Amino acid sequence: MLLDNCITDFFIYFCICKKAKILIATNKFMKKFRAAIIGYGNIGKYVLEALQAAPDFEVAGVVRRNGADNKPAELNDYPVVKDIRELTDVQVAILCTPTRSVEKYAKEILALGINTVDSFDIHTGIVDLRRELSACAKANNAVSIISAGWDPGSDSVVRALLQAIAPKGITYTNFGPGMSMGHTVAVKAIEGVKAALSMTIPTGTGIHRRMVYIELKDGYKYEEVAAAIKSDAYFVNDETHVIQVPCVDELLDMGHGVNLTRKGVSGKTQNQLFEFNMKINNPALTAQVLICVARASMKQQPGCYTLIEVPVIDLLEGDREDLIAHLV
Amino acid sequence: MLLDNCITDFFIYFCICKKAKILIATNKFMKKFRAAIIGYGNIGKYVLEALQAAPDFEVAGVVRRNGADNKPAELNDYPVVKDIRELTDVQVAILCTPTRSVEKYAKEILALGINTVDSFDIHTGIVDLRRELSACAKANNAVSIISAGWDPGSDSVVRALLQAIAPKGITYTNFGPGMSMGHTVAVKAIEGVKAALSMTIPTGTGIHRRMVYIELKDGYKYEEVAAAIKSDAYFVNDETHVIQVPCVDELLDMGHGVNLTRKGVSGKTQNQLFEFNMKINNPALTAQVLICVARASMKQQPGCYTLIEVPVIDLLEGDREDLIAHLV
Repeated sequence: MLLDNCITDFFIYFCICKKAKILIATNKFMKKFRAAIIGYGNIGKYVLEALQAAPDFEVAGVVRRNGADNKPAELNDYPVVKDIRELTDVQVAILCTPTRSVEKYAKEILALGINTVDSFDIHTGIVDLRRELSACAKANNAVSIISAGWDPGSDSVVRALLQAIAPKGITYTNFGPGMSMGHTVAVKAIEGVKAALSMTIPTGTGIHRRMVYIELKDGYKYEEVAAAIKSDAYFVNDETHVIQVPCVDELLDMGHGVNLTRKGVSGKTQNQLFEFNMKINNPALTAQVLICVARASMKQQPGCYTLIEVPVIDLLEGDREDLIAHLV
Repeated sequence: MLLDNCITDFFIYFCICKKAKILIATNKFMKKFRAAIIGYGNIGKYVLEALQAAPDFEVAGVVRRNGADNKPAELNDYPVVKDIRELTDVQVAILCTPTRSVEKYAKEILALGINTVDSFDIHTGIVDLRRELSACAKANNAVSIISAGWDPGSDSVVRALLQAIAPKGITYTNFGPGMSMGHTVAVKAIEGVKAALSMTIPTGTGIHRRMVYIELKDGYKYEEVAAAIKSDAYFVNDETHVIQVPCVDELLDMGHGVNLTRKGVSGKTQNQLFEFNMKINNPALTAQVLICVARASMKQQPGCYTLIEVPVIDLLEGDREDLIAHLV
């Protein structure tokens, strides 16, 4: 009987503890981070899905050029406005605008004291953007996390980690197979091209083949357009194949991939071999990384950060010790 | 001529700037972090090499049980002592002791206000160790970074990153082929075993085969010893093969490997596929990670951290903006 009582007491005590923990967890979830989606194109749509799937976020609203005009059905439950100031209690703005307008929007929104996150992807412009936004964020007691997609972004974390644990050596980032947005736009700009798709094909050691699929406008010759594409600055240094197809749209697929390798030296030990691979839906992964940094922005001191400056644990939802117990 | 002058002026200005940057860099390198190596076994030897290879570290000395008795030749240039208090100006102690003595040494050294780093590898003990050392580190205005080898350690960073960017799904960490220290010790403890090596062979989805190589003591039967090994707690749940060999020493190799996979969901998009592979010298990688966290310990607030709580950039040597420009 004594033992029985002990067991019962322990059981009740255990249940109370579990209950308390659940209540604490529930309370925590009840106070969700309020995020606004700025721009509702391809990335914006996937950001909406990722916010809906995240237990610790709620959608404060969507900012788009046309406001509520021609509002898509999936936005019926949310405020859709032309200016972020029309939304209430926004804590973080997720910029899903073209890369070249990131700086302008980030500065305007940081000036309101609202955190911003983006996937700015011009590698050579990252240091300057960080400086600009850092001053602006600090002046307004806000946080900005920039260039947080998958490359730059999660790949950068892997590159930095491998550089740290094998400080001498070479890292190659091989992209694809997958659609290159930049190259596709470059092809579309060439005279005679009606529709285009430029696929990036990895051939190892950071070298890529370009497979370009085009529809021709009437009156243009394949040979001439193909020659123009191959001599364009985007393609002139790469092995490029141009293929005429009846319908480019039938080839479109948002899958992409990375094969990142490093062979290097740890201490004085040569030939340490590392490889990171992924096969992913491109906008879905970008959107998920943006949600991760939106969360992390709540935990940083005012300023502007790239992903390699943020502790990885801050990207995750959940109790800190639970995360350490399960992931370390 | 005006143009010529401009170019010359610009060139001189440029040279001065370069020079200034080099001088700043040199000055920075002149003030190196002073690290002590605690324990001089296998890991300690590789830590010495990694410290010698790191541009921003100098070896304050080595602490070993026997002090300077039978000091190996490679330690001739360094103080070798029995107690860290005999060394001068130590900023960080790199613990290369057995895992089970990490807590004791860390507490003693943190109490002196010296940072500690270790590669404590009992996964189920990490949260408790972190709590214990956190209190101690804060009380002494010091920093401790724990469980910083490759698993737990750099693998943990990859696991946490993949969990963040594909929050739903399963991660499998597959180890090997490589020597398991824990399993080898377990085999050696079995009666009749003269020498042993337990190799971990990955068979996917986190399941491992154990290939156990043994030398028998005189008077013992292979069948009985093999049966005892297979029924040991370390082996009873795994496919285990026991092979008698004339000389275990001839099989010893410190190479190891990891294949870490995750298939998960980003937002609402299924089937995001990730893979991290490495083939590495085990103690060399552990040692390099320890040097990385010794460096990072200089940049954290007092307290105790696991590797997933430290920004990856803090593991790296060099100018912050340069690192961002090259790695993000």
